[in-house]
Amino acid sequence: MEKEPIFDIAHLAHVELYSPKVEETVTFFKDIIGMNDVHREGKSVYLRAYEDHYHHSLIITENEEAGVGHFALRTTSPQALERRAQEIEKTGYGIGWIDGDVGHGRAYQFNSPDGHKMEIFWDVEYYESPEDQKTGLLNRPQRRPNRGVPVRRLDHINLLAKDPRKSSDFLEDVLGFKARERIIKDDGTDLAAWLSVTNLVHDIAIMEDALGEEGRLHHLCYWYGFPENLFDVSELLVEADYEIEVSPIKHGVSQALCMYVYEPGGNRIELFGDSGYLIFDPSWETVEWKGVDVGKSILWHGGNNLPADFFEYGTPARKTEHRESPYRLVRCKLK
Amino acid sequence: MEKEPIFDIAHLAHVELYSPKVEETVTFFKDIIGMNDVHREGKSVYLRAYEDHYHHSLIITENEEAGVGHFALRTTSPQALERRAQEIEKTGYGIGWIDGDVGHGRAYQFNSPDGHKMEIFWDVEYYESPEDQKTGLLNRPQRRPNRGVPVRRLDHINLLAKDPRKSSDFLEDVLGFKARERIIKDDGTDLAAWLSVTNLVHDIAIMEDALGEEGRLHHLCYWYGFPENLFDVSELLVEADYEIEVSPIKHGVSQALCMYVYEPGGNRIELFGDSGYLIFDPSWETVEWKGVDVGKSILWHGGNNLPADFFEYGTPARKTEHRESPYRLVRCKLK
Amino acid sequence: MEKEPIFDIAHLAHVELYSPKVEETVTFFKDIIGMNDVHREGKSVYLRAYEDHYHHSLIITENEEAGVGHFALRTTSPQALERRAQEIEKTGYGIGWIDGDVGHGRAYQFNSPDGHKMEIFWDVEYYESPEDQKTGLLNRPQRRPNRGVPVRRLDHINLLAKDPRKSSDFLEDVLGFKARERIIKDDGTDLAAWLSVTNLVHDIAIMEDALGEEGRLHHLCYWYGFPENLFDVSELLVEADYEIEVSPIKHGVSQALCMYVYEPGGNRIELFGDSGYLIFDPSWETVEWKGVDVGKSILWHGGNNLPADFFEYGTPARKTEHRESPYRLVRCKLK
Amino acid sequence: MEKEPIFDIAHLAHVELYSPKVEETVTFFKDIIGMNDVHREGKSVYLRAYEDHYHHSLIITENEEAGVGHFALRTTSPQALERRAQEIEKTGYGIGWIDGDVGHGRAYQFNSPDGHKMEIFWDVEYYESPEDQKTGLLNRPQRRPNRGVPVRRLDHINLLAKDPRKSSDFLEDVLGFKARERIIKDDGTDLAAWLSVTNLVHDIAIMEDALGEEGRLHHLCYWYGFPENLFDVSELLVEADYEIEVSPIKHGVSQALCMYVYEPGGNRIELFGDSGYLIFDPSWETVEWKGVDVGKSILWHGGNNLPADFFEYGTPARKTEHRESPYRLVRCKLK
Repeated sequence: MEKEPIFDIAHLAHVELYSPKVEETVTFFKDIIGMNDVHREGKSVYLRAYEDHYHHSLIITENEEAGVGHFALRTTSPQALERRAQEIEKTGYGIGWIDGDVGHGRAYQFNSPDGHKMEIFWDVEYYESPEDQKTGLLNRPQRRPNRGVPVRRLDHINLLAKDPRKSSDFLEDVLGFKARERIIKDDGTDLAAWLSVTNLVHDIAIMEDALGEEGRLHHLCYWYGFPENLFDVSELLVEADYEIEVSPIKHGVSQALCMYVYEPGGNRIELFGDSGYLIFDPSWETVEWKGVDVGKSILWHGGNNLPADFFEYGTPARKTEHRESPYRLVRCKLK
Repeated sequence: MEKEPIFDIAHLAHVELYSPKVEETVTFFKDIIGMNDVHREGKSVYLRAYEDHYHHSLIITENEEAGVGHFALRTTSPQALERRAQEIEKTGYGIGWIDGDVGHGRAYQFNSPDGHKMEIFWDVEYYESPEDQKTGLLNRPQRRPNRGVPVRRLDHINLLAKDPRKSSDFLEDVLGFKARERIIKDDGTDLAAWLSVTNLVHDIAIMEDALGEEGRLHHLCYWYGFPENLFDVSELLVEADYEIEVSPIKHGVSQALCMYVYEPGGNRIELFGDSGYLIFDPSWETVEWKGVDVGKSILWHGGNNLPADFFEYGTPARKTEHRESPYRLVRCKLK
Repeated sequence: MEKEPIFDIAHLAHVELYSPKVEETVTFFKDIIGMNDVHREGKSVYLRAYEDHYHHSLIITENEEAGVGHFALRTTSPQALERRAQEIEKTGYGIGWIDGDVGHGRAYQFNSPDGHKMEIFWDVEYYESPEDQKTGLLNRPQRRPNRGVPVRRLDHINLLAKDPRKSSDFLEDVLGFKARERIIKDDGTDLAAWLSVTNLVHDIAIMEDALGEEGRLHHLCYWYGFPENLFDVSELLVEADYEIEVSPIKHGVSQALCMYVYEPGGNRIELFGDSGYLIFDPSWETVEWKGVDVGKSILWHGGNNLPADFFEYGTPARKTEHRESPYRLVRCKLK
Repeated sequence: MEKEPIFDIAHLAHVELYSPKVEETVTFFKDIIGMNDVHREGKSVYLRAYEDHYHHSLIITENEEAGVGHFALRTTSPQALERRAQEIEKTGYGIGWIDGDVGHGRAYQFNSPDGHKMEIFWDVEYYESPEDQKTGLLNRPQRRPNRGVPVRRLDHINLLAKDPRKSSDFLEDVLGFKARERIIKDDGTDLAAWLSVTNLVHDIAIMEDALGEEGRLHHLCYWYGFPENLFDVSELLVEADYEIEVSPIKHGVSQALCMYVYEPGGNRIELFGDSGYLIFDPSWETVEWKGVDVGKSILWHGGNNLPADFFEYGTPARKTEHRESPYRLVRCKLK
């Protein structure tokens, strides 16, 4: 009889993004993405979506380069926190305990094998909305903001890694994540992996860094749940001169209707229009995309050429990267 | 330090509905709801939605009266199955082990305190699509049917019970379900409870039986994930003379965009247009709707009078129930 | 050979609503419906939707009672204006020429047979957006407002009349409107008529006034074009305590996905989620709904009981009218 | 005072497409696009969408090469037909009268200046559905088919022309079309024009043929009215191995949410998810897109590289054209 699964990690709780243009980044998330800023401290601004239940789900921290500062997972119990901290310690990737931080208590910090800084915690501060923002919808922590096309909650983080398999093995073996889907290259190694502890297809995804760098970010994703909202927010984005990298498409992996946009600090932000499919099967076998199928894993419907940047650009950005104009082909036609 | 949660039940796996008009019921689920029949045996027809991964998620069994025959939960491991069977046994609600059934292995059967027959199992048969129904979308077990507006997967079951709290306590204490939302009556007792072991707001809901009966069904729900599909399927339903009880609304509880329709056997079927909100917080506190808030728990947007039947009609149906015409008010205007 | 059709009226250009609470009404249209106020003069505030091309499409004028002040049609040419003025004059319903008004030139004013004040004009002032509101979408006169869930343009007006046929005959015979659909009562008289000079099913609708009054308004309608926006705006409406009278439904007449809400002044406002069907056929025969079909003309999908108010309440309101609570049925269940 | 507009043409009534693979083309339109075949005669199959009111809106005719056979406009009256025939005759583009054809009466045939064969007619045969396809939705000529994701009606035709201005001038001057939008090249000549006699932005569009050919087709468009249907039909298209050229995007011109797919005969088919914006203003000034704005006229939201084929491929196809793989960029990444 097989070993039982680990149920110690509950979900992705918050992410810290670095931005060289903090105020512009915050304006983007507030005015267009409809998030609220709840706290400022040191070089950081704390934000949340209106259906995020904790104090915050996003920290924007001033930094010379864009990228991910750290991200945090909440455990399923105080006991689970102790157990996982001990297991991580054994791997040599541990950094150590901190007493707590804005919005949460005691946390154990560590690095992924690729050098992404992570933490796990149990005690958390819930968001309490001001009186005039309370809503009759009792399962919603505050009113839907009347600003932008507001996202509802944090969805997932997608990391670039020099060796995606090493990081996904770590998440599986030490933290109890399950690999839901993978893209396998012709040489048998991983191009990408999508992993979750929830019923989502991924709380964390890891893709090969095309430039061979370590510790970079591909994107952070927030969730709408309504496909039409992607077209609505596109109106605001374009008219406010933000750059949409990929307009609404359907991924094969996760089946998500989604789009990608650059926040002013340079980080790629994904917006989810639906929930994709959910996984309830406890003996789910990892879906593996190989060879000619790989195109469909990224663009299930076809009919859209992703810019080369989508496969190369990450944050912090590298000089060898270029940022294509989405209008390149259209413009060359008019010569 | 509190006791750790139970993680032994994975999800709702299948439901058996009784129908006095099996062929008409099957036609409804196939032609309009876009499900496939995969097996027939004895008085039963086995069906599945195109993104259900197991052999079937729905059994239609011939019976004099409509209602729910039994429903099944899959455990998270073989060990979890043994553990839960032992715990149920202690409660006195156990029926006993069966060797297996169409599409799954050894199962432990039992009754809810209200007399709804349930079972738990681990070993399961996966659906294998015929060659011409295989799809390039590798996380989907078969092509989307080109028939009806096809639902994607089983979502939840909603039971009527004489004493909803007794049944919800059983699900919580013995099976590890978490009560996500409740409606509390002015006398402090429960009108309804929504419970889940997944990130969904409910895998099982239990509402007070207005007629004081036991073991009845309020509805079974299948999932689209796209709100527009509710309006699409409404076209097919109305033109094929099926009766829509409630056209698309948004519940406060679960935040689901949904609708209700009667299948020809008399059971109420709900269709989910989105996923509502999902719950990732491991220390979620049950949302309680009381007093004047109750209206919004059912009709968050208002603007729609639910028929009295919605609160009284269940299957098997009772003589004291009536089935209102949805056109009643419209018609009386023309006198 | 039949007489050729009249092509002299182009479309509904603007509507003046009366409100006893002008500022609250303006706040509703600005903050939730996403319209802009462009001018204030005397007791009136002038507003427009972001894809309305003229100076304004809505005037809110302070008045003791709610209702419609007047509404205006633009002709297809200066010659057409003269021709129609002459024809109206002959009917005895003419009021006379005015030199012009805010946003338009010389206009001929007249009454409908039921006493609704109307005007026709040719010269019009186009809206010029401020520099910071200009958009790269050259067919759109200004950026999509980042406020509320903004409607795109004026759609139609729906009038209550003591004798709907008398008014619809006038629109057909004198102004060249075409009757697209009608509801016929059992006694052979009209309950309602939907008429247009455009490809829309109606620019003007006329319904029998259940109270036998003259000159009242049933509703004014603005257009989204995207069904999902109805659910989005419902969130803002409910959380800001506005009253949704009818949540999203599909009418049989016009096939529109729509909803109804009361603005604070008491006028009923409809919001269109799609365009319904369009009529291009120049020899279109009026669709007539009679007897048992009538229910479907109003609620094509069924599954929703319209409140009695929908058939009785108009503005200015009469004392005999009541305003039902949309939660009536839900609440009575909990006793 | 300016000359009054011409109101003699009502709308685009039907289009004949050539296909070298008639049966495969018909299967595409029936099984996926949800149209019905109503008649077969000679080398032609006649089809209609379920909300097309006439006998047919599409003719598929066997031919060695794909392309457009002819297309037809209905006039606004019998008198209008005579007037326009006389005016066309004067231009030298006339072919002459025919007695009638399947589904319509006497028609005047002519060529566009670029050699596209057209006809105008008044007398038309309406579609009468069989008893079992009648619907309670009295403004709909038949039930929504339970097959594919069915389009509702013919929308527009888009032609390639050696000299777009010559053809658009002809449509304006002789037939009374209005130029709604244009793309102007840096040398001041037209790249494209969108023209209509209806409230749609275009019944006919004309784009410069990048290969300098005459009489070719860019695409034919059918209409859904619901954006989500584009994603729904994409599922069926991809799983049935049809090629989506452009997945759902939003054009700046017309503001349409749309997609493009190749039918098996090689013709490009557009599907409209909404109605875009409608034009009611009788003094509408043609919107002109120039220079750097041109990209946005085609891809308003950006975020998508159209394949080069979109600007070069037409039917009948020419050898110098290539058909890019939509997965080109994705595939090259995996080397």
